[in-house]
Amino acid sequence: MTVQTSPRVSALKNIATRLRIDSVRATSEAGTGHPSTCCSAAEIVAALFCAEMRYVPTDPRNEDNDRFVLSKGHAAPILYAAWAEVGIIPREHLLTLRRLDSDLEGHPTPRLPWVDVATGSLGQGLCAGVGIALNARRIKSDYRTYVLMGDGETAEGSVWESAAVAAADSLDSLCAIVDVNGLGQSRATQLDHNMEAHAARWRGFGWNAIVIDGHDMQAILDALDQARATQGRPTVILARTVKGQGISIMAGKQGWHGKALKKGDEMDAAIKELEAQFVPEEESAPRPQPPRHVTRPAPKRGTLGPLPYQLGESVATREAYGSALARLGAADDRIVALDADVGNSTFSDKFEKQFPDRFYQHYIAEQAMIGSAMGLAARGAIPFPSTFAAFLTRAYDFIRMSAISNLNVKMAGSHAGVSIGEDGPSQMALEDLAMMRAQPNIAVLYPCDAVSTEKLIEQMAYRPGPAYMRTSRPKTPVIYGTDEAFEIGGLKVLRRSDADVATVVGGGVTVFEALQAYDALKARGINIRVVDLYSLQPIDAGALIDCAKKSGGRLITVEDHYHGGGIGDAVAEAVAGAGYTVERRLCVSEIPRSGMPDELLDRYGISARHIVAAVNRS
Amino acid sequence: MTVQTSPRVSALKNIATRLRIDSVRATSEAGTGHPSTCCSAAEIVAALFCAEMRYVPTDPRNEDNDRFVLSKGHAAPILYAAWAEVGIIPREHLLTLRRLDSDLEGHPTPRLPWVDVATGSLGQGLCAGVGIALNARRIKSDYRTYVLMGDGETAEGSVWESAAVAAADSLDSLCAIVDVNGLGQSRATQLDHNMEAHAARWRGFGWNAIVIDGHDMQAILDALDQARATQGRPTVILARTVKGQGISIMAGKQGWHGKALKKGDEMDAAIKELEAQFVPEEESAPRPQPPRHVTRPAPKRGTLGPLPYQLGESVATREAYGSALARLGAADDRIVALDADVGNSTFSDKFEKQFPDRFYQHYIAEQAMIGSAMGLAARGAIPFPSTFAAFLTRAYDFIRMSAISNLNVKMAGSHAGVSIGEDGPSQMALEDLAMMRAQPNIAVLYPCDAVSTEKLIEQMAYRPGPAYMRTSRPKTPVIYGTDEAFEIGGLKVLRRSDADVATVVGGGVTVFEALQAYDALKARGINIRVVDLYSLQPIDAGALIDCAKKSGGRLITVEDHYHGGGIGDAVAEAVAGAGYTVERRLCVSEIPRSGMPDELLDRYGISARHIVAAVNRS
Repeated sequence: MTVQTSPRVSALKNIATRLRIDSVRATSEAGTGHPSTCCSAAEIVAALFCAEMRYVPTDPRNEDNDRFVLSKGHAAPILYAAWAEVGIIPREHLLTLRRLDSDLEGHPTPRLPWVDVATGSLGQGLCAGVGIALNARRIKSDYRTYVLMGDGETAEGSVWESAAVAAADSLDSLCAIVDVNGLGQSRATQLDHNMEAHAARWRGFGWNAIVIDGHDMQAILDALDQARATQGRPTVILARTVKGQGISIMAGKQGWHGKALKKGDEMDAAIKELEAQFVPEEESAPRPQPPRHVTRPAPKRGTLGPLPYQLGESVATREAYGSALARLGAADDRIVALDADVGNSTFSDKFEKQFPDRFYQHYIAEQAMIGSAMGLAARGAIPFPSTFAAFLTRAYDFIRMSAISNLNVKMAGSHAGVSIGEDGPSQMALEDLAMMRAQPNIAVLYPCDAVSTEKLIEQMAYRPGPAYMRTSRPKTPVIYGTDEAFEIGGLKVLRRSDADVATVVGGGVTVFEALQAYDALKARGINIRVVDLYSLQPIDAGALIDCAKKSGGRLITVEDHYHGGGIGDAVAEAVAGAGYTVERRLCVSEIPRSGMPDELLDRYGISARHIVAAVNRS
Repeated sequence: MTVQTSPRVSALKNIATRLRIDSVRATSEAGTGHPSTCCSAAEIVAALFCAEMRYVPTDPRNEDNDRFVLSKGHAAPILYAAWAEVGIIPREHLLTLRRLDSDLEGHPTPRLPWVDVATGSLGQGLCAGVGIALNARRIKSDYRTYVLMGDGETAEGSVWESAAVAAADSLDSLCAIVDVNGLGQSRATQLDHNMEAHAARWRGFGWNAIVIDGHDMQAILDALDQARATQGRPTVILARTVKGQGISIMAGKQGWHGKALKKGDEMDAAIKELEAQFVPEEESAPRPQPPRHVTRPAPKRGTLGPLPYQLGESVATREAYGSALARLGAADDRIVALDADVGNSTFSDKFEKQFPDRFYQHYIAEQAMIGSAMGLAARGAIPFPSTFAAFLTRAYDFIRMSAISNLNVKMAGSHAGVSIGEDGPSQMALEDLAMMRAQPNIAVLYPCDAVSTEKLIEQMAYRPGPAYMRTSRPKTPVIYGTDEAFEIGGLKVLRRSDADVATVVGGGVTVFEALQAYDALKARGINIRVVDLYSLQPIDAGALIDCAKKSGGRLITVEDHYHGGGIGDAVAEAVAGAGYTVERRLCVSEIPRSGMPDELLDRYGISARHIVAAVNRS
């Protein structure tokens, strides 16, 4: 059904043309970027920013603003151009694109207040969008969430993880738009312009799918209307587009991915061609409308209840994690928990039982889980996603992007190391500390008992930025009194004397091996210093150096982790400045196998016996 | 259509009952494991191993055997029971399940010759299955590949990545079976027993989907017949089952995931109940039939052509990677390459142009790409999957499982570090060395010029086990002659004198910064030693210690990588045994931003100027 072009549509078409021109100018000025990718999305972006979305351009922090996620982050120039169009930034800023002194980076990051999550690793935007839409439900806002994707990125499995979650959660405030330009970086995309094949996938996943011509402004507006009217399920608008639309030398052609037009004749000709596409305008450009104003109480942050632990009691740190989460959830309604169908193993089900409305089940889909946490964190929640630490490796790209975004994503991974026992190596996290510590702004925590777990969860919740806690499967004795203080970046010296011959630094389960070794050595008149390194990053270098000084310069680390990137490396780095080295690193140095926990600790060289031998250099 | 039960069906039913009994006995003996998960799959496994698959039970290495991947790896006991049933292992071995002295681990690993890839991280089996099926095409075998999944794991996006690849590649030799028992670990699965919702997803992804009752033996046999007869697309059999089928206390009940029946009354009652399910047998149990015998020539391994480089010529290591791959491909037809739509950036397209039949396009789906590589490697190919190093983080769980499987997966990641420039942090790999080095059996290589890249690719190809090469975006000068030898575990000392005041250890682009620093210092009469650490793991500790000794014990590392887990940590670990430390670690210590490559190297403290300052302690 084609109707007479309305004045509003004409004005929006001209906005699309301006967005194309701005995208070309910015990328040509930078000499780098993706103008062809911008051009296919120009009508969609114009419609969203100037007709569909309700937001206050002067108020990026307005909780009720509709949200936009540019999942195809390489189209950043057209996002920035849309901001210039509605007055968020001055148009001349666009020419600073990709410069070291400009926040208009090659891909959008939250250095910019209108960006919730960094994009540029494809297939993540919808995952974050699900979290942003869940947040609307959490704060009882009617804001809508729009995610613009490329067709190429729908090859990423993460898209389908989140598609399934969005359908299961009936997220009708979520609208995905796929800019189906049919061209990837190196060739046609997997489904090319087969719109029905695209639609079949989304419908198969329970979505309302609408196929349109993505350069037909009226069709875009109609589809957005239809999406807004659709209840009980999310909508995807599958927009058939042409990559490089509007510029004849690149329109629909291979070889123009990530390539700017050369400043001078090439750029000038393209701009001239685009300018000729302006249509007569009968009304001024439409401007965004504000959202419905909602007054809501400030989030409550109450006081935490007391800790119930007795010294010597046996409690797994994973269980203390669940208890801490529930305790924190009672005091602060921004705390939310996310699971990937292991809540009865990580003990996040303790939170679920008390706060089912703030517990988000993602089934076995770790990328979607971390992606949702990113979106929730970006909109003011304090999300704790947790699963087996081994399976957080599945979401490493999302963790990386959370770090780039510096989001309040508070991760916990249980079942660390060979101490899980019989399930075998596939379930044992032996590289999680390395993976997390490799991100410079992730706090990395590894408590050994229930009290330190609970106290560090509190610390994690309120430290800005991403954080990770490693928890263990076996029960371990409570060794700290409930009034003991813990801080991120600290450690505890558990045993010390004036005659220490070495310092043994452990974490988690190996702290208890070190304590056993202490007793065995003590019985033979040998004193060692024992450190519980519950914070690997940041790390208390001063205290470690002091331990080294006071124990003959001898440091031994022992960890239920592979050699690379864990406690050994962290301690070595921390003490190097004072000239100390780690004399022995006891760690899991090969691919382990199934067995009983104690057998495995011994087999892989991280039990008390091995510590004693290391101290004795035997 | 139900027909009279045939004698064959009765015999297969009894096999299913025996598999259940064996699974119960093994898990009860171990006191740990997943009998309920085994029971839902008993008829399927019986049909596959005793009626459908063609293989020689005495010859696991037969190239033409049909292949089976137990993607739901926690059902390992029933796989082992099937082996006992057909005589691959003695039945009494089943009772060693999960013991440290047994290869019958909690989840299957390739320590066992009938296992191609380790499973236990859900959602990976189909990805490996695609690679195994691609291998059949490569070696021109008519073997078929069967993948048994749980319904819970279809929430993993990796399943859909590989589903898309299998459909795009028309892999009709691939048959997935989903054991839809409707129960996850902590609750009902996302789609529960909604079989039509399952089918809609698979059909949406272009698969032939067949819905059956998974406990109806005749229906299973019919569906397998239909799958075998289906051409041009893969088939999925969606089998509606009951978790714990056959044992009334657990059948269809929550709370029985990963829980063994207690030895004694509980186990005895279950076995009694199962034994009552034996039906009268009119013929002996069916046995597997052998595959069609094919004689094929031994894989050729020819000699490599000469290297074309001139000293001083500018060539990016990513480009040399592509050249090396093509050169190697010409000499050895086991070499295959896999891409995720960036072949024109990683330069794997040089291989594609020459060997399109051995180039597997996965579009933007890194998990599927590594998964396929795992399957190909397991069946004798030497696969080189490559993408931007940053996006290998997307596949870290697959990389982890490749390491557990010790597979010949030869990964390459391009566009490492801030030296990529304007695209910004989402495209910059700054944690890839940490991620790879954290796996104890992955060789980690980081060449700085074209010659070393080419020579190390040769070494990677023929070193057993997984390996990773990091390549860079910028062009760098060729500094090695084409007759220079390189070995995994080596390094090169590029500058040395008898008066060196420090050793600077770099890798990739920072080698050239170190050489510039050398020149600047030399001009002021200060000598330094410069090391090209092209092999981080294994690492030449002896040579590094020697450098330290001969340069006043002063070591400075410089790397285009975050602080954790990279060159700094690797060198520190290597020299610690001799009492040396790394005095300064120049690295990227914060989240970087867009800018020009040289600007960024300087901004983040890893340029020649910073090296000079570090040497001068200024």
